[in-house]
Amino acid sequence: MFQFELLHANKEGSARRGRLRLSHGLVETPIFMPVGTQATVKALSSEDLYEIGAGIILSNTYHLYLRPGAELIAKAHGLHGFMNWKGGILTDSGGFQVFSLSPLRQITDEGVYFNSHIDGSKHFLTPEKVMEIEQQLGADIAMCFDECAPYPCSYEEAEKAVERTTRWAERCLKTHYREDQALFGIVQGNVFPELREKSARDLIALDFPGYGIGGLSVGEPKKEMYATLELMDAILPQEKPRYLMGVGAPEDLLEGVIRGVDMFDCVLPTRLARHGSAYTREGRITVRNAVYAEDFGALDPSCSCCVCQNYSRAYIRHLIKAGEILAHRLLSYHNVYFLTKIMEEIRKAIEEDRFMTYYQEFLDKYKL
Amino acid sequence: MFQFELLHANKEGSARRGRLRLSHGLVETPIFMPVGTQATVKALSSEDLYEIGAGIILSNTYHLYLRPGAELIAKAHGLHGFMNWKGGILTDSGGFQVFSLSPLRQITDEGVYFNSHIDGSKHFLTPEKVMEIEQQLGADIAMCFDECAPYPCSYEEAEKAVERTTRWAERCLKTHYREDQALFGIVQGNVFPELREKSARDLIALDFPGYGIGGLSVGEPKKEMYATLELMDAILPQEKPRYLMGVGAPEDLLEGVIRGVDMFDCVLPTRLARHGSAYTREGRITVRNAVYAEDFGALDPSCSCCVCQNYSRAYIRHLIKAGEILAHRLLSYHNVYFLTKIMEEIRKAIEEDRFMTYYQEFLDKYKL
Repeated sequence: MFQFELLHANKEGSARRGRLRLSHGLVETPIFMPVGTQATVKALSSEDLYEIGAGIILSNTYHLYLRPGAELIAKAHGLHGFMNWKGGILTDSGGFQVFSLSPLRQITDEGVYFNSHIDGSKHFLTPEKVMEIEQQLGADIAMCFDECAPYPCSYEEAEKAVERTTRWAERCLKTHYREDQALFGIVQGNVFPELREKSARDLIALDFPGYGIGGLSVGEPKKEMYATLELMDAILPQEKPRYLMGVGAPEDLLEGVIRGVDMFDCVLPTRLARHGSAYTREGRITVRNAVYAEDFGALDPSCSCCVCQNYSRAYIRHLIKAGEILAHRLLSYHNVYFLTKIMEEIRKAIEEDRFMTYYQEFLDKYKL
Repeated sequence: MFQFELLHANKEGSARRGRLRLSHGLVETPIFMPVGTQATVKALSSEDLYEIGAGIILSNTYHLYLRPGAELIAKAHGLHGFMNWKGGILTDSGGFQVFSLSPLRQITDEGVYFNSHIDGSKHFLTPEKVMEIEQQLGADIAMCFDECAPYPCSYEEAEKAVERTTRWAERCLKTHYREDQALFGIVQGNVFPELREKSARDLIALDFPGYGIGGLSVGEPKKEMYATLELMDAILPQEKPRYLMGVGAPEDLLEGVIRGVDMFDCVLPTRLARHGSAYTREGRITVRNAVYAEDFGALDPSCSCCVCQNYSRAYIRHLIKAGEILAHRLLSYHNVYFLTKIMEEIRKAIEEDRFMTYYQEFLDKYKL
């Protein structure tokens, strides 16, 4: 089952307040989805994620296909059963990972030959194969197999990727049968407006229940990303959810929402945690720095998460210096909570028609 | 504050049921203390430890002295404040670590010169200095600075260590002033009964509120350990707690309790977790093994911990293979819960005068 309901549009700008009805519960949008690449949001348990209030998480088809394999996960009643997660799950198609992680790959119209980044073994993924895998994984939302052209690339290269992405989207649709799983198309087109528009119109014609905006935040200037989002906002159907793939820095969440984006995902909060960094309302801090050695305050003094209520910067810095994995866990918890909380505030601000004020106040305070 | 109350002695054998009254709450004995070497029980939060029901944990003076330093911890209102733990804490004196971890060391009657295992820096620890550190750390129970002779060693070597341990214990007593912290003596003497007896009698004369039994489980045959414990049971005052240091395999907990031991600590449950192993009622299993790849059952099917209620062997094996730290966390939680639960059962069995039956039934089932 899948439904998207648009509850309220902010009076100014394109910010929207919506609700996804998934096979595993309701998800209020705009939403940030924490990333559980290998069927685990790094260092966090499902119980942590319930406590944080994460309604939907993302997992990676490419990684799970290679290890532990989709058949194994199907035997565990899908990803939900395997990782014991009762909320929503979205699986990306592996398209991006095949292009970014595999040391050797060859793309044909049929599919992609690549070598595993784990053991070098050879694999061939087609849109049909990816659909088989994603349906075995059994997420609430699956993404089409797409070709994500690199940045920078030529117009011709980007055009070819767009055309292939459309043909692959058609093949995905034909192979997808699970009614408890929604299949989203992915708009490509790099930073070329004509190609973005063509890709979007191709996919709109295929009538997907939702649309991913792929191939952004891959090195292009921010203004290119914003321009693309504005174009997508104008073209993509208002009544369907838009998902900005792989984007999730606090400032980008705001910039996305103001341009009509409903869904986000990003590895940043857990990756920053592993690097000893934490989000605060004033910007990111690197807790491992010596300046925090005797700072007995919370990571973010204004935060109400259980890490900020119970542990100090000095203690977490000690854990980092001592190589203790509790550091990753506490920082991951706080960082994911931080983004989840921001999205909650954003939703409330939209409901109350004061998102523009929220946007401005947040960014005035948050140092990049 | 410190009190030990003997509630019940099992009719057969020397098993005892007692209660420690510490500055941070009551602790029911016999008790297993999880080890938080660097002010963290590896991979577990304080909240986890409350949930598991750990009443008292151990931390290491040697490690904390080197990093982050006792002054810093004192500024955080001691270890309890620093790591946010409201239960009991025992700090060992660093004696064992100086001898086992430091690459270079020189022992004199005054104290021990050694090089840090972290950065090679030179340090000098005396009984007075250790007391200063332990009082800065502020645990509920502190241990005397002792000399732990290696196994095997000559009678003369062991005798020298016993004599030094007694003199150092006297110096510790003279320097120890915190009334909210109990100071325990440590019995040494290797596997020589005469030396063990001498060490115990020396320390009894100093009238400590509790006694550690040190220098065991360092390579000697089990029967030597058992014989030493029986000797200690006969000599040490009944009305004071006995703490078998560094011992905590399930079978050893039972063997200790039956010989009158009240307290245990061991890094094994969290170390085994990092090696991908879990305790079950039938013995240890190595979850990383291929045989568990499609085993969707709990780590220990009879266990009621939240890991066994929610996650499968197959999932945890996947986490291990994928290098995900959630594996350490889930295994650590279960293993610490397992030992805590056994101690709870042991206490109940003693209260009901059926410890001998419990002992036999447990060991019949538990494969070594």
